[in-house]
Amino acid sequence: MSVHLPRGTRDLLPEEMRRRQFVLDRIRRVFDRFAFEPLDTPAFERIETLTGKYGDEGQKLIFKILKRGEGGERGESDLALRYDLTVPLARVIAMNPQLRLPFRRYQVAPVWRADRPARGRFREFTQCDADIVGSSSPLADAECVAVLHHALKELGLERFTIRINDRRLLRATVGAVNALDREAQVLVAVDKLDKIGREGVSAELAGLGLDPEQCATLWTLLERDEDDSRTLSRLGESLVQRNAPEIQESVNRAVDDLRALREAALALGVSPDRLRLDPTLARGLDYYTGPVFEVVADDVDVGSIAGGGRYDGLIGMFSGRDIPAVGCSFGLDRLLVVLEELGLLGTTENAVEVLVTVWDASQHSRSVEVAGALRAAGVRTDLFVGDGKLKQQLKYANAKGHPWVVVLGPSEVADGVVALKDMIGGGQERLPLEALIQRLRPGTELA
Amino acid sequence: MSVHLPRGTRDLLPEEMRRRQFVLDRIRRVFDRFAFEPLDTPAFERIETLTGKYGDEGQKLIFKILKRGEGGERGESDLALRYDLTVPLARVIAMNPQLRLPFRRYQVAPVWRADRPARGRFREFTQCDADIVGSSSPLADAECVAVLHHALKELGLERFTIRINDRRLLRATVGAVNALDREAQVLVAVDKLDKIGREGVSAELAGLGLDPEQCATLWTLLERDEDDSRTLSRLGESLVQRNAPEIQESVNRAVDDLRALREAALALGVSPDRLRLDPTLARGLDYYTGPVFEVVADDVDVGSIAGGGRYDGLIGMFSGRDIPAVGCSFGLDRLLVVLEELGLLGTTENAVEVLVTVWDASQHSRSVEVAGALRAAGVRTDLFVGDGKLKQQLKYANAKGHPWVVVLGPSEVADGVVALKDMIGGGQERLPLEALIQRLRPGTELA
Repeated sequence: MSVHLPRGTRDLLPEEMRRRQFVLDRIRRVFDRFAFEPLDTPAFERIETLTGKYGDEGQKLIFKILKRGEGGERGESDLALRYDLTVPLARVIAMNPQLRLPFRRYQVAPVWRADRPARGRFREFTQCDADIVGSSSPLADAECVAVLHHALKELGLERFTIRINDRRLLRATVGAVNALDREAQVLVAVDKLDKIGREGVSAELAGLGLDPEQCATLWTLLERDEDDSRTLSRLGESLVQRNAPEIQESVNRAVDDLRALREAALALGVSPDRLRLDPTLARGLDYYTGPVFEVVADDVDVGSIAGGGRYDGLIGMFSGRDIPAVGCSFGLDRLLVVLEELGLLGTTENAVEVLVTVWDASQHSRSVEVAGALRAAGVRTDLFVGDGKLKQQLKYANAKGHPWVVVLGPSEVADGVVALKDMIGGGQERLPLEALIQRLRPGTELA
Repeated sequence: MSVHLPRGTRDLLPEEMRRRQFVLDRIRRVFDRFAFEPLDTPAFERIETLTGKYGDEGQKLIFKILKRGEGGERGESDLALRYDLTVPLARVIAMNPQLRLPFRRYQVAPVWRADRPARGRFREFTQCDADIVGSSSPLADAECVAVLHHALKELGLERFTIRINDRRLLRATVGAVNALDREAQVLVAVDKLDKIGREGVSAELAGLGLDPEQCATLWTLLERDEDDSRTLSRLGESLVQRNAPEIQESVNRAVDDLRALREAALALGVSPDRLRLDPTLARGLDYYTGPVFEVVADDVDVGSIAGGGRYDGLIGMFSGRDIPAVGCSFGLDRLLVVLEELGLLGTTENAVEVLVTVWDASQHSRSVEVAGALRAAGVRTDLFVGDGKLKQQLKYANAKGHPWVVVLGPSEVADGVVALKDMIGGGQERLPLEALIQRLRPGTELA
């Protein structure tokens, strides 16, 4: 019988699960420390909850669930797998007026999108989101930047850059070259700067009807120098000069907010070397309304490993009122690639430490006792329950990567000791059970 | 705009999430200690992977996913949400021949069943399974019993009973009254003993055509006395006398396995008071083939909170060969009810410890610094990012259940101290930041 996984999905086998748990445990710990609270929502939502939220392209990627019973036989669907964690959050906010705002929540959970599968792109993948709902203060934005920063530090990542910009500045930049009628397309082009370079972007801008002078102005505006504060002042002033009054006002607010964000982030322990104002950062054009940020690893080129921004128009969609919000999220798969590449996942955290072998079926009682005693001391202990002589059992331990093996033959039982084999360094020694426990868990108090 | 949850589903708000995380973290820790390894599989499987695995009734409860594109418009489905974690495990075993057996894995993950929703019955619920695949040794069964026992102890539960039986003994019991042609129905009736009592069961047996003498024999066989070993010997002997040779042999093997299981479980630290042979325990008639077990809390009557057994016919379904297996699982929702009732969830683990208030928008820099310093010391710290004076901020802390509040008014800032309000015991004191950190995290070394 041939069996297959659904297209674009994967099983997470133990080694991969441990790597992910290692990363997610640390991220969760930092979310907790920042007072983000855990939330979970059902895997599926009523279809009308998701319809119309993701644009025409997104809509096609939603997995729909057949009605049970007759409706399903007619091909009707009433439910759909969640596509992100933001629409469910908006629904939770609308349905739970008792939740006091500002509400900080995190959700680490799979989402499903029927994208064409590709290397590193799956139809089921974990999102890892932290958001603050109900605050328009730049302090909230700073909290999001700081939580990303501290979580990455907690994971041992030292060299990374948090690029920061503001959607209002981008809009004013487009306004400054009189192209607001093509705002989205211009930003899509600018967003490709990392990939296709300035010439590539300029060609696309020309294709959008921007003349060379408009292009030149755009590039001048988007210039940055080493000093963020100076860049921001210069950009703000230029944008105010070149825009209509209502945009001028939003430019001034954006400049103030970015300054406040930066100041608060530094006070929250974000390293100033990690922050960089980047006037070209566009990121998720569709729903961000204020500051946006994105993290790249300095030494591993996989694109952004985390990001976020302010999106004041979205969370209120079911509540019938505007609810400001800012959030951040990790790209777990990319983050794993970075940490792996830098040797930061070389951990055996939670892995099995020792296999207790069984001499034969008639002489296993001491093995069982020893396994019980090791576990009581907190040692992660496998007990061999298969068929096979000692040689097979050692092969088993080797295949599983267990670093230690305990052997209890008749002579060890007679002498009241265990034999401990070092599967990594080699060698074997005989020692009493108490000494074995002290070896594997120094400082354990024995009963 | 009215918004609803899908029928039979629920959101897990922060308090509920923390309760579940508290329980699941402890269960996972004990699974790890027993060398069960974490596994995850996609939420959906190809529809042919699930079809025909759960009987006619189960089949109707499977959530099917519409094909994307044209097939979906015609109402065709190609995927389905997983119904349990066992069929996916069987698929993983078949697709990953490199996995060395015995393979111990655990999976804590939601499953979906379109059951009629009822109190405590949801269409999405978490299964929490640990299984040993590829061992027919009673040591493996003992490991499963022991891991349930130790996980419940880790959760603080002291008074519970693990009922143990063996499907082969039940079959022989039905054979002893010449009713093997109605085996499943007889066992369904016996399984209701807890709910409808002996008279109720006898009535059902009469309805199945068992005469009073057959019923009397059945009850005699199913009798237990206080001593498990004596009960087992007597039952084994009676069943051997009253059955055909091939059933005699399976009775003898079952008796030997149950003795070995018990002995090994005790050696693994299971308390003898917690174990009870129960010849009436039927549990999951459909696929168990050997020992079965079920845990009930002695002081809270919610039915079984955990259980498991040996199912040698199932895991090989995709592999084309017999693969013995034994497993156990927790009923998370019922377990939560028991722990709540007994006051064992009164934990604030991972909850926010302190809110740092903000005097006003122009004077928040010291608040931000203090929040940063508290978090650097590992204190789970909320920073107020909403609108509102101190009074509103205290209300916010109260609504969220934060036990401590830090106030930083102009006088505290001038004096270089913080004011710490005790939101539970009442009272307020002024102290330097270093003393605050020592108060909340004694022993922290300050930079």
